[in-house]
Amino acid sequence: MHKLSGTAVVAHGGGPTAVINASLVGVIEERRRHSEITALYGARHGIQGVLQEDFIDLDREDPNLIELIGRTPGSALGSCRYKVKETDYERILEVFRAHNVRYFFYTGGNDSMDTTLKVARLAREKGYELRAVGIPKTIDNDLAETDHCPGYGSAAWFYACALRDIGADLRELPGRVTVVEVMGRDAGWLVAATALARHEPDDPPQLIYLPERPLSGEKLLADVEAVYRRLGYAVVAVCEGQRDEKGEPFGADLIAADGFAHELAGNLAHALSQLIARRLKLRARSEKPGLLGRTSAAFISEHDRQEARMCGREAVRAAVEGVTDKMITLVREPGPEYRVRTGLVDLERVANVARKFPLEWIHPQGNDVLPPFLDYVRPLIGPVEPRARLRGEPVPKRLG
Amino acid sequence: MHKLSGTAVVAHGGGPTAVINASLVGVIEERRRHSEITALYGARHGIQGVLQEDFIDLDREDPNLIELIGRTPGSALGSCRYKVKETDYERILEVFRAHNVRYFFYTGGNDSMDTTLKVARLAREKGYELRAVGIPKTIDNDLAETDHCPGYGSAAWFYACALRDIGADLRELPGRVTVVEVMGRDAGWLVAATALARHEPDDPPQLIYLPERPLSGEKLLADVEAVYRRLGYAVVAVCEGQRDEKGEPFGADLIAADGFAHELAGNLAHALSQLIARRLKLRARSEKPGLLGRTSAAFISEHDRQEARMCGREAVRAAVEGVTDKMITLVREPGPEYRVRTGLVDLERVANVARKFPLEWIHPQGNDVLPPFLDYVRPLIGPVEPRARLRGEPVPKRLG
Repeated sequence: MHKLSGTAVVAHGGGPTAVINASLVGVIEERRRHSEITALYGARHGIQGVLQEDFIDLDREDPNLIELIGRTPGSALGSCRYKVKETDYERILEVFRAHNVRYFFYTGGNDSMDTTLKVARLAREKGYELRAVGIPKTIDNDLAETDHCPGYGSAAWFYACALRDIGADLRELPGRVTVVEVMGRDAGWLVAATALARHEPDDPPQLIYLPERPLSGEKLLADVEAVYRRLGYAVVAVCEGQRDEKGEPFGADLIAADGFAHELAGNLAHALSQLIARRLKLRARSEKPGLLGRTSAAFISEHDRQEARMCGREAVRAAVEGVTDKMITLVREPGPEYRVRTGLVDLERVANVARKFPLEWIHPQGNDVLPPFLDYVRPLIGPVEPRARLRGEPVPKRLG
Repeated sequence: MHKLSGTAVVAHGGGPTAVINASLVGVIEERRRHSEITALYGARHGIQGVLQEDFIDLDREDPNLIELIGRTPGSALGSCRYKVKETDYERILEVFRAHNVRYFFYTGGNDSMDTTLKVARLAREKGYELRAVGIPKTIDNDLAETDHCPGYGSAAWFYACALRDIGADLRELPGRVTVVEVMGRDAGWLVAATALARHEPDDPPQLIYLPERPLSGEKLLADVEAVYRRLGYAVVAVCEGQRDEKGEPFGADLIAADGFAHELAGNLAHALSQLIARRLKLRARSEKPGLLGRTSAAFISEHDRQEARMCGREAVRAAVEGVTDKMITLVREPGPEYRVRTGLVDLERVANVARKFPLEWIHPQGNDVLPPFLDYVRPLIGPVEPRARLRGEPVPKRLG
């Protein structure tokens, strides 16, 4: 493969994660080893920055600051949710030509991979030599062809700890039900990880629902009531994208039947807590950590950070060696110890494809996950230590 | 003061905090130094445990586990929200007599202090010698007569970091408004602490509302619109107990006027985000970390933990020396360095009294706090480090 000299552009698409900056730093550090990359630009706010020619010169940043950025959650370049129009691609190419951009590294999910692919195809069609490589990034873990996605492990760690802590609050001050809303859009990977909050039998969350398995309102109510009767409290983890048996956003029919307003549908956990309160006559509340789940500086999983950085480095190395139209993947090595290497996959196999949570990892009852998933996810997150509990030797009663 | 021999009971009332266990460990460690306390019992689930004679023997716990408990958030004894009835006090005294309980340490807020006082008074009336001392505890920081309350600093730290992190997500992926709901019931102490999230001018949260200052919906909308126009995004921190200009839970009138359902009133941040979306036609969402704010194992402020433990120790020491009908307070020493000692206050001065956030620390515009509050709160929390940001040297445009 011949040596291709020119500028490289790196950009972030979609929601920030705890380690998207680690991938950025991987790109920056690998680029220093390759003189054919004559300049490294960061596009501000993703593809919008490209369209508006809004670049920053990453070669002019202090290397010490760069290291710090690699340990900071969120998107240091800024990101966007701009839906690229067909007519935008010509403009992207025009901007790339103007700055002699020959390398394009887009860090994002399956929609960003689609953008990357379309840019690469148009360039080829127009005879403009460009190497476009995608760097995987999504807390939802729904990219195809990779064992897991950078960003997922840290968010999974956040939610496992959140459910451990919220669950302890309910256990200690019982007589309540809470419904905790977990991110993940239409995929259950994140809500599934809340199972790691448990250390002893009956530990919260006692109920975990995944959008891959449709759920009826009556089933939810029966599950909650059974747990509450047994333990005196109940903690429910539910994915924001949960669907009911008709494939509608969960709760839509119940909201109608129970006279709830439409607005509640946009706030699933609250809607469900209201439903539980009304129908089961229990004290119910909801928690929605929301954006905190993907941006908390307190929850950056070490493996996640290292792998995100590795993906950034590998994207540059591959592109310099001639690779284009590919996304970097993470490949788990077989064996008892957790080891990961990178791989490559055609962009067209991941663009706009959503990888669902495997049905065989969902409990037949539809309200929990199975052990093979725990083995899959445990190495990806940080420690979820049990909260210390008193032994609690009872004092004999004297009155009775 | 004569030596009073007998059993001591320690109990937790109301919502758990990150450091209520540190106060428990303070009680346990000080009790070892006083042979007149012949046994130390923990009441399970607060005053309910006393009523049901449900005690655990704290002398039979492993000292290493006790140290670990002191660093674990939440209530290791279990807590309750039981509203004590007048007829319950006779039963409490009966249980105390049966176990020769001569020392009662109740860890809680102003309602728990009321219970403590009533138990002490009834015992005196009935000629039963009992020393009852309250240990302050509330994330809301609304206990009177103390500089601040154990539990507040850790929760304030959580929310300051949460707003820094959520705020960064909005800054990096702009074009959105978010409303973050902060605990605190009817007091603005916690929401005020989110001001510590800021490190540079215009940093989020740009708007902070306190329930001590009534707020109109139109004012909120005007504030949000102004911030959004200037920065392209806006982050609002609002206390769960915010009131409107009529003294009603905030949003009630707007909810009626705009056709929102009543259920939204129980979920303030979501209701406000819906209002902003409808009226300002902006993309708006809400976050409600909820219970996580008082129970997160990742946010135990070191000063808070030490002070909580000191309050536990001092309660035992004072009672052994003859004190009763008092609550331990924290007294800030004058001087440039942060130093705190304990004091004592009559229970009747704190029972059922709520200390509001001082109006003179609220910005005249009613949407922010003033620097003297920042000086007050800063030493109570842990570090809120700025998130690293790129210098961002722009690349000259070639197309324009």
